[in-house]
Amino acid sequence: MIDRTDQLPEAARESEVRSYSREWPVQFAHARGARVQDVQGRSYLDFFAGAGTLNYGHNPPALKEALLSYVAGDGITHSLDLFTAARTELLTALQQHVLTPRGLDYRVMFPGPTGTNSVEAALKLARKVTGRSSVVAFTGAFHGMSLGSLSVTGSESKRAGAGVPLAGVHRMPYDGFAGGTVNGPALLDAMLRSGNSGLDRPAAVIVETVQGEGGVNVASPEWLAELSDVCRRHDMLLIVDDVQMGCGRTGPFFSFETAGIVPDIVCLSKALSGYGLPMSLTLFRSELDVWEPGEHNGTFRGHNLAFVTAAAALRSYWRDNALENWTAHRAGHVEERLREVALRHEGLGARVRGRGLVWGLEFRDPELARRVGRAAFTRGLLVETSGARDEVLKLLPPLTVSDAELDEGLEIVAESVTAAAKDRAPQEARTS
Amino acid sequence: MIDRTDQLPEAARESEVRSYSREWPVQFAHARGARVQDVQGRSYLDFFAGAGTLNYGHNPPALKEALLSYVAGDGITHSLDLFTAARTELLTALQQHVLTPRGLDYRVMFPGPTGTNSVEAALKLARKVTGRSSVVAFTGAFHGMSLGSLSVTGSESKRAGAGVPLAGVHRMPYDGFAGGTVNGPALLDAMLRSGNSGLDRPAAVIVETVQGEGGVNVASPEWLAELSDVCRRHDMLLIVDDVQMGCGRTGPFFSFETAGIVPDIVCLSKALSGYGLPMSLTLFRSELDVWEPGEHNGTFRGHNLAFVTAAAALRSYWRDNALENWTAHRAGHVEERLREVALRHEGLGARVRGRGLVWGLEFRDPELARRVGRAAFTRGLLVETSGARDEVLKLLPPLTVSDAELDEGLEIVAESVTAAAKDRAPQEARTS
Amino acid sequence: MIDRTDQLPEAARESEVRSYSREWPVQFAHARGARVQDVQGRSYLDFFAGAGTLNYGHNPPALKEALLSYVAGDGITHSLDLFTAARTELLTALQQHVLTPRGLDYRVMFPGPTGTNSVEAALKLARKVTGRSSVVAFTGAFHGMSLGSLSVTGSESKRAGAGVPLAGVHRMPYDGFAGGTVNGPALLDAMLRSGNSGLDRPAAVIVETVQGEGGVNVASPEWLAELSDVCRRHDMLLIVDDVQMGCGRTGPFFSFETAGIVPDIVCLSKALSGYGLPMSLTLFRSELDVWEPGEHNGTFRGHNLAFVTAAAALRSYWRDNALENWTAHRAGHVEERLREVALRHEGLGARVRGRGLVWGLEFRDPELARRVGRAAFTRGLLVETSGARDEVLKLLPPLTVSDAELDEGLEIVAESVTAAAKDRAPQEARTS
Amino acid sequence: MIDRTDQLPEAARESEVRSYSREWPVQFAHARGARVQDVQGRSYLDFFAGAGTLNYGHNPPALKEALLSYVAGDGITHSLDLFTAARTELLTALQQHVLTPRGLDYRVMFPGPTGTNSVEAALKLARKVTGRSSVVAFTGAFHGMSLGSLSVTGSESKRAGAGVPLAGVHRMPYDGFAGGTVNGPALLDAMLRSGNSGLDRPAAVIVETVQGEGGVNVASPEWLAELSDVCRRHDMLLIVDDVQMGCGRTGPFFSFETAGIVPDIVCLSKALSGYGLPMSLTLFRSELDVWEPGEHNGTFRGHNLAFVTAAAALRSYWRDNALENWTAHRAGHVEERLREVALRHEGLGARVRGRGLVWGLEFRDPELARRVGRAAFTRGLLVETSGARDEVLKLLPPLTVSDAELDEGLEIVAESVTAAAKDRAPQEARTS
Repeated sequence: MIDRTDQLPEAARESEVRSYSREWPVQFAHARGARVQDVQGRSYLDFFAGAGTLNYGHNPPALKEALLSYVAGDGITHSLDLFTAARTELLTALQQHVLTPRGLDYRVMFPGPTGTNSVEAALKLARKVTGRSSVVAFTGAFHGMSLGSLSVTGSESKRAGAGVPLAGVHRMPYDGFAGGTVNGPALLDAMLRSGNSGLDRPAAVIVETVQGEGGVNVASPEWLAELSDVCRRHDMLLIVDDVQMGCGRTGPFFSFETAGIVPDIVCLSKALSGYGLPMSLTLFRSELDVWEPGEHNGTFRGHNLAFVTAAAALRSYWRDNALENWTAHRAGHVEERLREVALRHEGLGARVRGRGLVWGLEFRDPELARRVGRAAFTRGLLVETSGARDEVLKLLPPLTVSDAELDEGLEIVAESVTAAAKDRAPQEARTS
Repeated sequence: MIDRTDQLPEAARESEVRSYSREWPVQFAHARGARVQDVQGRSYLDFFAGAGTLNYGHNPPALKEALLSYVAGDGITHSLDLFTAARTELLTALQQHVLTPRGLDYRVMFPGPTGTNSVEAALKLARKVTGRSSVVAFTGAFHGMSLGSLSVTGSESKRAGAGVPLAGVHRMPYDGFAGGTVNGPALLDAMLRSGNSGLDRPAAVIVETVQGEGGVNVASPEWLAELSDVCRRHDMLLIVDDVQMGCGRTGPFFSFETAGIVPDIVCLSKALSGYGLPMSLTLFRSELDVWEPGEHNGTFRGHNLAFVTAAAALRSYWRDNALENWTAHRAGHVEERLREVALRHEGLGARVRGRGLVWGLEFRDPELARRVGRAAFTRGLLVETSGARDEVLKLLPPLTVSDAELDEGLEIVAESVTAAAKDRAPQEARTS
Repeated sequence: MIDRTDQLPEAARESEVRSYSREWPVQFAHARGARVQDVQGRSYLDFFAGAGTLNYGHNPPALKEALLSYVAGDGITHSLDLFTAARTELLTALQQHVLTPRGLDYRVMFPGPTGTNSVEAALKLARKVTGRSSVVAFTGAFHGMSLGSLSVTGSESKRAGAGVPLAGVHRMPYDGFAGGTVNGPALLDAMLRSGNSGLDRPAAVIVETVQGEGGVNVASPEWLAELSDVCRRHDMLLIVDDVQMGCGRTGPFFSFETAGIVPDIVCLSKALSGYGLPMSLTLFRSELDVWEPGEHNGTFRGHNLAFVTAAAALRSYWRDNALENWTAHRAGHVEERLREVALRHEGLGARVRGRGLVWGLEFRDPELARRVGRAAFTRGLLVETSGARDEVLKLLPPLTVSDAELDEGLEIVAESVTAAAKDRAPQEARTS
Repeated sequence: MIDRTDQLPEAARESEVRSYSREWPVQFAHARGARVQDVQGRSYLDFFAGAGTLNYGHNPPALKEALLSYVAGDGITHSLDLFTAARTELLTALQQHVLTPRGLDYRVMFPGPTGTNSVEAALKLARKVTGRSSVVAFTGAFHGMSLGSLSVTGSESKRAGAGVPLAGVHRMPYDGFAGGTVNGPALLDAMLRSGNSGLDRPAAVIVETVQGEGGVNVASPEWLAELSDVCRRHDMLLIVDDVQMGCGRTGPFFSFETAGIVPDIVCLSKALSGYGLPMSLTLFRSELDVWEPGEHNGTFRGHNLAFVTAAAALRSYWRDNALENWTAHRAGHVEERLREVALRHEGLGARVRGRGLVWGLEFRDPELARRVGRAAFTRGLLVETSGARDEVLKLLPPLTVSDAELDEGLEIVAESVTAAAKDRAPQEARTS
């Protein structure tokens, strides 16, 4: 990683752990919709969206109004797990606009304000319910940075940060891993049937339907359905980590809807509050609700400002199918444009993957992906890379992006690929 | 736990894991300073303060104003670890009002928005720096609910929620444990000197200066200083978890200041944002900053609304010693009043412990502590119990509570003890 | 398991953990070559050979003579790791007859008297050398019952005996697992290349070339060679557990010789002393010898009676290729006879697998395998079952069995299959 | 450790892990009673006794005769857990001479041939019976080198050999640790009562009544009785590891008899076969016998030569109280002589500890203990050092040593201390 920020005074007091600011070495100040401004007044189109947190763009007006009114009126801000008016409103909206229409009989748990809190709660519950300690996770998975979530995360470098062996996890190949040569659910099934495989019966399987951090790896509906069957057959719980792919990122509210499966436990966070405010939920089938009171807790599990914006977001965007349909419609458009780019630069071996409004453009050479990201930044577009070696340009525009903005962003991507490929050519010529 | 809320419609969709709402079965709506109102308009004096999150009371005006203005002006809300104006302002205020005046050369890390994120980051860093995997924690400790933090937490019931053995932790007796018969730091020292004790050299020792959740157990300055010496002698890092006791709860900004020690790593959260907004920091000596970029991350580590209120809180309350002195002054008053109560009911064997504005009234019979809490609630006071068996009434008034409110609350406590003791007498007569 | 011994007085004082005596409920007294006698004087042909411990039969005369002479002359019996004349003689014989002829530059470690001691030492050394904690093991593996060895063993029921999660092991499919649909070495390679697979770089891979306890699963030379390549490519140590398959069971002294690989670490035990006396060795490339003196030890690592018989065995059976060639020659004969049996009872779906003088006859119905074993016992043949569900009749005649005895045993097997199949037929008729 | 053997040809092929042979760099050949001879015919008096394995001296005639006769008569040597005549004879002798006279209703398990097998089986059983995973072990403990046993062992350097964190163990101070300032059983009791101590209820406590390897640390009968009470009170199993201290080393057959306690599980090995042959047993209360058949196994659990000598040893030495009384009588004599030595060299701060015929002479300066050991060797006495830093000269003469031999050995110890102290004086003068 080339760091272009080390000399900035802003960096002086901070730990070396910061990362995004190394690529985008400016100070941001204001934001609205799909646009962010830095302190010098320069504007950026945002196809990063808080790594999938800002599905409705920055500071969406309906939510902002609800938030301002709540704060101005001295609504209670912090309430742990006490009942509050804002909380009840959120639970009601969730039931009405999300759970009931989808026929989901889920209990709702407030596990703390971040995705990793939700994953930790899910893993704890699965282990408690089943009395088993191991879980199955997949190659390429990202589930968070606290110890329980990190143990199911795949990244070698992030795992190294733990400083302790990350135990209790069996690892299976994700859909498409290693060129798709291994059927992960079938292998898991065979190992569980065997009685002699060394894979002790797990409490649960945890999976993302699309691996965002892992490089926009997309599991097919069939693969997910087979995985769900294996879970049922061997009495394991299926946990879908929908932290990044939920709340409409792939089209429907839950990313697993298209696969026709009903997970036992679902983790939601990121775009849930709709305003970038920390909040997460863990949903699970009501029979699984074996928690003792207070057995899992957390200081910020009652963040009422987030409840207010989350309720507003559900009412604004999920009272009907409009957003879902809109996202589906745009998916095709984005795919088409990206395929054109890939085709135009066939020599780069670029591959296009995605669903809804999460798309990846994978380059054979990771350096190229990073160079495209930098070229886009200089052209006023924020777009990050992901994957094990940052080899995938990852597009996460707000779902509410306008047609013009979407095309503008895709055009910058196209230009940036051209520019990056050109920069590279002479280098290659030299080395060959 | 008697649950008085099961019949409320609010509870219907929720997991059984909620706890506080079982004791205080009302729906809260508004709050200001030391007062909270429920939806029926009933007012409560708050000696709970979000379990130590609301050191400056609910919705303090100066912070509220800064927050409203930031939101109204479309300041960027969510920024991961990007540089933002709000973030720079916070770092500047922290340096100016907290670190520089105390001569502390700490690097600042944004580990995610909650205390448990900060503890997880501290443990990871300590293990990474030292290349060792085990840590020392104390009886009665509370450090959080994600797997790494839970492993250093003491509570048997909370640990049971993990569903996996919580490894890598050596447990030592806290100051005063088991009647103070064992000198924990001396025992630790002897075990580390021995070479044959089975206690592998730990990466770090993690400690609270006062164990809030553990029952307001107070470590003496001498004990803390001896512990710090043992850490230095054996090249272990000293982590002070100041999540609940920091930000002035015991008087000074950091609770360890009175012991004259300088921890290697400090965890801050809860009252840091000053407004009940999720935020935490991990501070550490700059030589320890061995993180790789992105080695620890988290979606909500850039919560700008919290940065805005936190900066305002530092400027409002920590530009001079006034609050610290005020807290010290009041400590004596609270202690005196509680000792009177304990003396008046000598037969209950009540014991008084505390520092600054965190005080515990321990009852021999845990049921009595719970009954006092309930009697206080019916008299309009929110005050929780803590300790292994909820045997300690734990007073955490806002630091900004007025003299009149403080006396009102203490008077309700006194009345509630009398009432609870009376209720109990006939019962005891019957059983004898 | 039908237990036919519970009523025997011999069982009264003993733990329920015993197993073999449940199938063969007699008291054995004397033994010689391939024959064992019970206390009633009944004789049995032994195609079990101490689960592969008695490769040269019971009490082979040359070894017996050396043993008697040593004991009679008050040779030192127990010596920990002191130098003794018997030990030097063994090391010399090992070098001369085994290591030098095969060009193997191995250091020799005496890890304690059993196979599991050798495996524990191998795992410790691999972790120490590499500084990594996890290892790769295979489905169907059996490596022993102490905690380290058990963690790499596959059997679900045996693992359950640990009472603690068995951590630090990644599990890969063995050659032929799940119908051979997954190439284990290739999957391992892909996961290690990925950087994001969640499989942290392991210290070592531990493998049996033929899984005896696992059901006589045979790895092909190509598969072993590919595995060895993957180890080299990713700088992992290759441990071959040759406890059951070493000392000529598959033909050559080491079972891995036919695959053309040179493991980094080799575990030997079982047939090593040649007389059924407890003894094991761990061999490893000399660069790996990073042990501190005494870092691994054990009371019975200097069992001189076993050294005496082991040296005699090496001199008697491994001074030339005669035994190896003889075993190879017989392998074809056994295979042919077993295939005839399988063919004759085609409806049973029996499958034949093996190498050298370890052969398995797998039945689709595990109950049938057990019934064949019992039928053989009543006909005077000792032959055990193995595999996850005891579905494989496992033939392990002494390598020194005479032609007549071999044919006698194979004839009893054939008769027993016929008898067991007949018993079964009416049952099946009834159920259909 | 000064190694005086590196140049010997015997060492050339061997791993660096060997240790004893570094101090006693000769090749031993014959042995009888308390005397060992090297290949050059030099004779040594043996106060080491195979680290407590040779309680009846080397090659005791009655056992030797039984062994020769059994081997000569082609008694079955290796039998796994099959019934054999030799095994039944052993079980009968154990019942008759050991269990019945002491009123002990123990089941007998054959866990494999070494002490570490017995400890592994004990830990597994305790975890299986209780369904809990952690155990309590003590500072200074030594229980073996396989992973489960190593996790309860105290030695820092041996633990480092594991290469993985050794989890699942709470460590308590042994009797006398750190100057006896902490009452271990009382601290354990307080932590278990607390509910908030972080010490999850353990499956078992494992303890040696005298820590031989740990430096001849002696637990008082009162301490052991209190520990036993704490176990009962909190429903934990008490495991006594009597591998080194059993079979009469401290006087009675079991070392715990004097404390008036009855452990739930007992581990026996070392001197059990009486001839230095690998063998161990695990004894436990019959209600604890929850093993599934074969759930723990091992190739060498049926070592009939050891059964033959073990049965002969029980009949020869334990049919009456003679040996026990004799040992008790000699204990006083040894203690007296050692105290004289300590007193004579008061400036060395030597301390004397022991019971029965296990005695330690601790020196303030570990180097001195090692020098005494070397001085003794040059004078023809084998005596080892133990303790965390080898600071304790550890006397383990055979229980059958003659009066003259005992005095001869003690005299050599006295001379060696004088010699070592003299060597040291000038050195100290030089350095000061």
